[in-house]
Amino acid sequence: MNIGLDMMGGDFAPLEAVKGVQQYLAENAAANLFLIGNKEQIDPLLQEHKVPADRITVVHAGQVIGMDEHPTKALKEKQQSSIAIGFHLLAAGKTDAFISAGNTGAMLVGALFSIKAVEGVLRPTISTIIPKEDGGTGLLLDVGLNADCKPEQLNQFAVMGSVYARLILGIENPRVGLMNVGEEEGKGNLLAQATYPLLKENKQINFVGNIEGRDVLVDKADVMVCEGFTGNIILKLAETLYEISHRRQLKDEYFDRFNFENYGGTPVLGVAKPVIIGHGISGARAFYNMIGVAEKMIEKDVLGKMKEALQ
Amino acid sequence: MNIGLDMMGGDFAPLEAVKGVQQYLAENAAANLFLIGNKEQIDPLLQEHKVPADRITVVHAGQVIGMDEHPTKALKEKQQSSIAIGFHLLAAGKTDAFISAGNTGAMLVGALFSIKAVEGVLRPTISTIIPKEDGGTGLLLDVGLNADCKPEQLNQFAVMGSVYARLILGIENPRVGLMNVGEEEGKGNLLAQATYPLLKENKQINFVGNIEGRDVLVDKADVMVCEGFTGNIILKLAETLYEISHRRQLKDEYFDRFNFENYGGTPVLGVAKPVIIGHGISGARAFYNMIGVAEKMIEKDVLGKMKEALQ
Repeated sequence: MNIGLDMMGGDFAPLEAVKGVQQYLAENAAANLFLIGNKEQIDPLLQEHKVPADRITVVHAGQVIGMDEHPTKALKEKQQSSIAIGFHLLAAGKTDAFISAGNTGAMLVGALFSIKAVEGVLRPTISTIIPKEDGGTGLLLDVGLNADCKPEQLNQFAVMGSVYARLILGIENPRVGLMNVGEEEGKGNLLAQATYPLLKENKQINFVGNIEGRDVLVDKADVMVCEGFTGNIILKLAETLYEISHRRQLKDEYFDRFNFENYGGTPVLGVAKPVIIGHGISGARAFYNMIGVAEKMIEKDVLGKMKEALQ
Repeated sequence: MNIGLDMMGGDFAPLEAVKGVQQYLAENAAANLFLIGNKEQIDPLLQEHKVPADRITVVHAGQVIGMDEHPTKALKEKQQSSIAIGFHLLAAGKTDAFISAGNTGAMLVGALFSIKAVEGVLRPTISTIIPKEDGGTGLLLDVGLNADCKPEQLNQFAVMGSVYARLILGIENPRVGLMNVGEEEGKGNLLAQATYPLLKENKQINFVGNIEGRDVLVDKADVMVCEGFTGNIILKLAETLYEISHRRQLKDEYFDRFNFENYGGTPVLGVAKPVIIGHGISGARAFYNMIGVAEKMIEKDVLGKMKEALQ
């Protein structure tokens, strides 16, 4: 398998990307890597870090899309950017997955418009890992791609999240909870009220009912479903827990797990090939983890399994 | 002024309520208190805790609405309950405010249906205090009374929240932020997109733009506005920060401030008289604080000021 990696994305590119690649290839890793970026900057670093040449293909990209550029505009105008070339390679079948810690908007636009949606998917989605206090791991989705949703979309997010939780997070029969303001059926805003019966009837998932804000960090549900407005606010609030506990020097094992570098980025779920979006502050470990997630997604045919589950 | 207090509401009633009353009256407090509940249970406790008889009126209530009873049904059928009698006294003008740590739903139903809305208010709202990392205090609203909202309602929440923040929390010219998924105008779901221009044009408030999940716990905005679905989830998530840090014995000054007992309950904003809803786990300190907030709301004519600001 071939995995494409944007070497120019993220605040510490390309050095941290190179280090992540080195770590990945030092293990008995399955994938060959297409490293996309400015050859003049990348080649010396690859040599310096002794990255084995037989496992990589460097693809030169003369342009970079900045973190603050307008996604659609930049992607259209900068055809030689590492992100644009990354999606060209993916769409052409030269690579089987694409990873970048660069401009999130451009990554989303690229994923949605240059890669087809999985057959049957109404809207692709993005998720985040939520560490649970008991040591477990939850998946929250959507976290911002779809600020307004229809019940049928949330129902599909539940299915896609369940497949991902099972195959990538290793959770057997993941419990699906609907983010809501109360436990009982019938609670919530119009969207949650209309979504509940769909989840209840859905035989592809293990629906355990409504969950509340108090349940997000504890062991109540493995896959937590909501529209992207609420999900994005929860995600960004959760991210500050690491920052705050860090600033306050709490050195707590649990709050440390909110360091999102541990989780290897956010896959776009529902597009036909793995696309993984990293955090702007991704370091070597994050790149290493993202390549690992992409490998696992290809190996386990996560997107094929989603297609089956949605039929 | 006369403040009504439900002595039977909350998990530790009536003992903790009596202790809170004792503490309040031990200071040079302005209000006389109407203590509503089972006389047989209350009287011995009042004597035991030496509550001065000239500052209190005990009003017997033979029934109690349980924490899990259906709000509307219970309030209708249990006319002799402490909550029902509390609202009768308030509606009749015998008291100027009503406080209970009992059944939240019954308190909301009572507030909405036995007390008129402030003139001009489309929908009353409930808020919560959010402690800020720098030691400051924010106000988040709505936190669950209105799961679906219209832009005009959020605009009013911003005004009511600003008046409350100024007069009760003592924040000069409070900064209003719109909870959203991005900083720029135009971001967000349809509701947030439609609300932004209303807040921007509103001369009664100091609008500082969109705020994100990462801004909730830091010093970015004093009054944080959203619909009650998102707000309720943030509230309940924030409450678990105290519980988790407590369970993990972190003993951190900041996370300790998420102990909601510190803040004396949630006022219903937008009904014509102060109604304050306490947490089920309210102890003496919470009751003491709730009586203090009610006194301050009457003294500063918070609801009159809201009416003015909304015209």
